[in-house]
Amino acid sequence: MGGMSGNAVRVALLGCGTVGSEVVRLLHEQADELAARVGDRVELVGVAVRRPHKHAELGELVTADAAALVTRDDVDVVVEVVGGIEPARTLLLEALKAGKSVVTANKALLADDGATLAEAADSSGADLYYEASVAGAIPLLRPLRESLAGDRITRVAGIVNGTTNFILSAMAASGSSYADALEEATRLGYAEADPSADVDGYDAASKAAILASLAFHTRVTAADVYCEGIRAVTPADIAAAGELGFVIKLIAICERTPAVATQPESVAVRVHPAMIPAAHPLAAVDGAFNAVFVEAEAAGQLMFYGQGAGGAPTASAVLGDLVAVARNRVIGGRGPRESAHANLPVRAMGTVPTRYHVSLDVADRAGVLAGIAGEFAHHGVSIAAVRQTGGRGGGGGDARLVVVTHAAPEAALAATVQVLSGLEAVRGVDSVVRVEDLGRTAPEVGS
Amino acid sequence: MGGMSGNAVRVALLGCGTVGSEVVRLLHEQADELAARVGDRVELVGVAVRRPHKHAELGELVTADAAALVTRDDVDVVVEVVGGIEPARTLLLEALKAGKSVVTANKALLADDGATLAEAADSSGADLYYEASVAGAIPLLRPLRESLAGDRITRVAGIVNGTTNFILSAMAASGSSYADALEEATRLGYAEADPSADVDGYDAASKAAILASLAFHTRVTAADVYCEGIRAVTPADIAAAGELGFVIKLIAICERTPAVATQPESVAVRVHPAMIPAAHPLAAVDGAFNAVFVEAEAAGQLMFYGQGAGGAPTASAVLGDLVAVARNRVIGGRGPRESAHANLPVRAMGTVPTRYHVSLDVADRAGVLAGIAGEFAHHGVSIAAVRQTGGRGGGGGDARLVVVTHAAPEAALAATVQVLSGLEAVRGVDSVVRVEDLGRTAPEVGS
Repeated sequence: MGGMSGNAVRVALLGCGTVGSEVVRLLHEQADELAARVGDRVELVGVAVRRPHKHAELGELVTADAAALVTRDDVDVVVEVVGGIEPARTLLLEALKAGKSVVTANKALLADDGATLAEAADSSGADLYYEASVAGAIPLLRPLRESLAGDRITRVAGIVNGTTNFILSAMAASGSSYADALEEATRLGYAEADPSADVDGYDAASKAAILASLAFHTRVTAADVYCEGIRAVTPADIAAAGELGFVIKLIAICERTPAVATQPESVAVRVHPAMIPAAHPLAAVDGAFNAVFVEAEAAGQLMFYGQGAGGAPTASAVLGDLVAVARNRVIGGRGPRESAHANLPVRAMGTVPTRYHVSLDVADRAGVLAGIAGEFAHHGVSIAAVRQTGGRGGGGGDARLVVVTHAAPEAALAATVQVLSGLEAVRGVDSVVRVEDLGRTAPEVGS
Repeated sequence: MGGMSGNAVRVALLGCGTVGSEVVRLLHEQADELAARVGDRVELVGVAVRRPHKHAELGELVTADAAALVTRDDVDVVVEVVGGIEPARTLLLEALKAGKSVVTANKALLADDGATLAEAADSSGADLYYEASVAGAIPLLRPLRESLAGDRITRVAGIVNGTTNFILSAMAASGSSYADALEEATRLGYAEADPSADVDGYDAASKAAILASLAFHTRVTAADVYCEGIRAVTPADIAAAGELGFVIKLIAICERTPAVATQPESVAVRVHPAMIPAAHPLAAVDGAFNAVFVEAEAAGQLMFYGQGAGGAPTASAVLGDLVAVARNRVIGGRGPRESAHANLPVRAMGTVPTRYHVSLDVADRAGVLAGIAGEFAHHGVSIAAVRQTGGRGGGGGDARLVVVTHAAPEAALAATVQVLSGLEAVRGVDSVVRVEDLGRTAPEVGS
């Protein structure tokens, strides 16, 4: 590493933490392989970090002045693995304006303001690649952007956050509470000290915005994504799902809704816990693994599975992008542009119909079911199935009533639940969890 | 469709059967989408078929003269979905020599003589893409070739033949015989009238050669692939696998073996039925679906899942490639070249160690186990576990003895089995099935 040569593709790296140090290692260890695939050597010419004295191993490559590094004449490609909106946005925009190609793993920035970056890349004819921003090592963005370019994607549904999947898997396996499972995840390094970005769904929402943008050729930002985390998921919810042959996962769902009557074609993008059928391929994705299920008109159902985080897997995705942009430099071309030509409207979550599993603690007496069913009907929410357990048939005690609905808009369901919780016969609304069949059989709930 | 324009990318199609007719449909229905993604219109200017009179719907586009079509001046890209070695090879070589880019789904041709095609493409600077040749709609070759280009792939293990997976899934689900399951597959259209290419493993072997070539940057042909089909798999084998928590799948395995002592780094490529752990992601791939499991040093474990055959899924993969080569035409570049720079030796199957599950019908008397274990030891095959069932402990009747070995070369195992079958105490060797842990826990076989 280090030094300069006439023809090498010269790389500046921003950030040298878990991912960055793996990028440095791979650039070094795989140097010959990379050269063979790129057609020229790939050379690291600078690494910007906040505390240069902590990176003695990088020698003269290290600098604290990222702004100077990204526009240096001897830099062809800027690799960013710092994360966060600023200063990453300013640095990458400067790099793109200066004609440098950019490889980034920055999901927050792309989901917040990918359009500005894409425009800057188009203006200067530089490449902008970001495979590592979603689902770590899993080759996913390139297949969506390129392999399926001749097809029409109708839905993307994914487990794209390893922390929450670890927690939900642990809860399902041991029956433990959310708090205990979170503690275990933290202890094992799967959750950060402040777990909010993961457990409240924001990380998954950023990834959903990126996936939806690529899948539907429509600019979707994180602000367009409905987002609900897993803090409220209880062992009882998971047990109830199990009784139906379902499991609970935090799912990012990007869907295309065909045009109907006066409504134009649109997309909806949401992240929330959902009951999914245990036989669905996504249901078997446990622990910190990620998987993304894609449905396209001609290709049918596809799934991509792998490690969604970690230094080496994320670095693998960065290197794959780096090979592509470096090769584009060598042959004088560029990769496919961002495409937002479809420009479809994004629907508000209140209007997106989903199915629900509602668990109620009710008085065990005649007429209660009729009253509750009436409230659902009154709000236009159609009931698919009802099951009552625990009561002794009008004995005057409590019973549990489980209602699974047909697809209904969130607004209608919310209004129904609000009225139900005020009914004298309803002791409590124990849980409301969405049900996603993902193209599989609807749940059967016998009485 | 039809007609000519100045700037459109002009496509000639060879073959208009199940896949070809879907390609024609998608080119028509997705014309605007394709134009947006390519940067120019994609136009079908000719379709070569054997019986032009059967394709009246194609009007003036149709021709019986494929040789003239592939070198016509108004053709930029040739799409081949005919299959078979000849005349496809000659036609595609002519097309590439004339500077046309080629998109093909022809696994047999690529596995037989991909090097010649790749050289012709390199000579004229044309593109050669063939995503549809392996695992139908699943974006797999592009991820291997591009996304993982900065990583080091150590193993590819896949279910790449839908017919055999349907048959084995049916046998496992119903306990039916191979013959009955094949009959069902034929009736449902999953198996051809002559099923040999599928059930004897040749189709999977072609795909394994293509996967290994890309994964290891080494030219591997179908002739290099050890190939064993599923005709000999019995319901008893499947039941025995189930007792161990395993399932039987026809697996294509491409492995890299590190250099040791005087042995250089090498690759081994094989297709055969194997017991794999029921908890492995590949084990859940049922019916006609395909899935490919990839292990890379930095990326870790990845899996790609989807429909491996059928007109629309295969056409989706063809269109994805067509978008790429058409865009390359428009921007004046070309895609990544074939890379065989690693040029690793391919090992003969006799020297590749695998684990085995051997089921023997033996005399139920003292000393039999010791004698059998002695034969394994004598041939250098180490035993991992033994289980004896069915006997009454020296009662003089028959018993079943199951031996699971540690990894041993096929030659050593074959020699052991030959000696065992001649022993007086061995009434018969019921089955010999390979066991592949695929990185998961080894099977526990209690006594």
